[in-house]
Amino acid sequence: MLNLPVRKLHGPGPSPVSDSVLRALATPCIGHMDPEFMRIMNEVRAMLQQVFRTENEMTLACSGTGSAGAEMLMDNLIEPGDVCLIGINGVFGGRLAEKARRAGGIVHTMEAPWGYVFDQDAIIDKINELKPTLAAFVHAETSTGAHQPFDRLASSVHKHGGLLVMDCVTSLSGLPVEIDKWEIDAAYSGTQKCLSCPPGLSPVTLSDRAMHKAKNRKSPVNSWYLDLGLVGNYWSGNRAYHHTAPVNMNYALHEALTIVLDEGLENRFARHRRVHEKLKAGLLEQGFSYASDPEHSLPMLNLVNIPEGIENEGAMRRHLLDEFNLEIGGGLGKLAGKCWRVGLMGHGAYEENVDDILYAFSQTLAAQA
Amino acid sequence: MLNLPVRKLHGPGPSPVSDSVLRALATPCIGHMDPEFMRIMNEVRAMLQQVFRTENEMTLACSGTGSAGAEMLMDNLIEPGDVCLIGINGVFGGRLAEKARRAGGIVHTMEAPWGYVFDQDAIIDKINELKPTLAAFVHAETSTGAHQPFDRLASSVHKHGGLLVMDCVTSLSGLPVEIDKWEIDAAYSGTQKCLSCPPGLSPVTLSDRAMHKAKNRKSPVNSWYLDLGLVGNYWSGNRAYHHTAPVNMNYALHEALTIVLDEGLENRFARHRRVHEKLKAGLLEQGFSYASDPEHSLPMLNLVNIPEGIENEGAMRRHLLDEFNLEIGGGLGKLAGKCWRVGLMGHGAYEENVDDILYAFSQTLAAQA
Repeated sequence: MLNLPVRKLHGPGPSPVSDSVLRALATPCIGHMDPEFMRIMNEVRAMLQQVFRTENEMTLACSGTGSAGAEMLMDNLIEPGDVCLIGINGVFGGRLAEKARRAGGIVHTMEAPWGYVFDQDAIIDKINELKPTLAAFVHAETSTGAHQPFDRLASSVHKHGGLLVMDCVTSLSGLPVEIDKWEIDAAYSGTQKCLSCPPGLSPVTLSDRAMHKAKNRKSPVNSWYLDLGLVGNYWSGNRAYHHTAPVNMNYALHEALTIVLDEGLENRFARHRRVHEKLKAGLLEQGFSYASDPEHSLPMLNLVNIPEGIENEGAMRRHLLDEFNLEIGGGLGKLAGKCWRVGLMGHGAYEENVDDILYAFSQTLAAQA
Repeated sequence: MLNLPVRKLHGPGPSPVSDSVLRALATPCIGHMDPEFMRIMNEVRAMLQQVFRTENEMTLACSGTGSAGAEMLMDNLIEPGDVCLIGINGVFGGRLAEKARRAGGIVHTMEAPWGYVFDQDAIIDKINELKPTLAAFVHAETSTGAHQPFDRLASSVHKHGGLLVMDCVTSLSGLPVEIDKWEIDAAYSGTQKCLSCPPGLSPVTLSDRAMHKAKNRKSPVNSWYLDLGLVGNYWSGNRAYHHTAPVNMNYALHEALTIVLDEGLENRFARHRRVHEKLKAGLLEQGFSYASDPEHSLPMLNLVNIPEGIENEGAMRRHLLDEFNLEIGGGLGKLAGKCWRVGLMGHGAYEENVDDILYAFSQTLAAQA
């Protein structure tokens, strides 16, 4: 009925979804208050805790895509007038700053060139200067392929009573995300990247410190839909009805998380790294160059400069889609028309995927020449 | 893997989902910017226009459940200080008022007994008195089974330059929803009621008048995720990327809408009415009484008083679930413990469903006696 092609998904997400996740998605729906669905929610939470490497009780799948998860954290953790520090080195940091502003925050930003990351000492200096109530950075910038180190930031934020927030939309289960070890207070992700589940849910986790702030707000949260006082009760409190959860999407996430944990996180990280190295070698051989900091490049999202001589990169991506069913990403924001983004995420991060990509690229570049 | 029972879903939603919708849901995911997904979005919009009976260009599936659709309208159409009139005759009117307040509205409410509706003349008088910039009522109160007439309200709202908003979460495709004929400016629904699609999306539609207000706001919308200036561009403007749409959920909605339109709206309304009459006759015979206004009762959601002599209605609903795989709804809010809600929605509104429900009820009541 839908008459859709089967694509090879190697853009910035969604990533390829395995058959067993699709089968789980299509399991007949049950009620959002059914005791059996409560069991599914508990199991999803327990598996998310393992993937986030946290013991945070407040760990759940927000009923929207990654942008909703980001907004849930900004809306609940920022009160009007709160001083916030947001790092912008790509599109998603910029969006985080905008959401923090709409939540009423007085937003200060740090900027780094797109494709590059912030030096942690520079962040710590800025935190000591501003003493923000919330500091947020993007662990894996999907628009640039930059991998931000996060392991040394927490103590400076906590020293001033603030909260440290992390966007790990693209990194979760593809790179180490150490919520408890790095003392991250709140983080959000998306299902359609390294978890290889269709888009529609946003895994989030909040520390007790973050929940203390959320529970002791003086002003109501902007959003009713994303209000953690209400959503949290449904996920882990008295189970009071809040909204009708996207039941089938939670089935799919349950299966996707099962697959991730069956493989093992360390094996999964190693696989992403290994397959990335193979892609990188092949792309360099074809004349591509990387546009992101070589010391801080993501394995699952490869930002490359479009080779010289290519005049219409959009037509070329369309050719890849039409002739090879291959989706890659164009540049976003200020990188539009200059870069391509090649994703190797989750179920799409195997050696054979690299072969497919390199073959399609070589054929398309040859046709162009 | 999930080990889930197959339930007969006759609560307040989610409703039963047909096999073809589940198959559509499990179609391999493609990219949210893929031209083929744009085609799916266009087709979803065109079918939603038919189901809403509107020509509104701004008709789309909001990437969240019904509560997100409600919030999208309140957040975009209310500016701080706007006078709003909200009708409360059940839980969902109350939620709408809360969302309007969080959007910055100065909220005036009208109240009616739960299970009953507002007289349209009384609403018109109140509108003439308050001259609200936004008036919102619930067409089908899922918490009470009340069916609010809406056909005479628009001119009084428009006379004062205001907007008329309708919650048609539970009525859409089960009862006439006449967006253009009744001159409704904005409405939201849910997928998991009479459309018989899993929960996760909220169909919304806005008139040009409503979009004029949204586009000429002086203050930014509280929510970035639900900002129609951004979401609208993705659905029908320049197709600029906003968020990663829940691709597979849109597949399912596409198929569910196809089924609705294949049956025909009038046939579907008649079926809901006919099956409701059969259920009603059977329930009355079993000693149940209706708790909602007999002149304004919904066909798809039946509010009945729990028969005398039943001491633990929760245990009885649990018995229905465990022994008959039958889900019905308990009372919500002030009706908790007093009423049951029996849903006959979409794919679950056939004569055989009534037989199943009446059989399970009779056996369970007999066991109780």
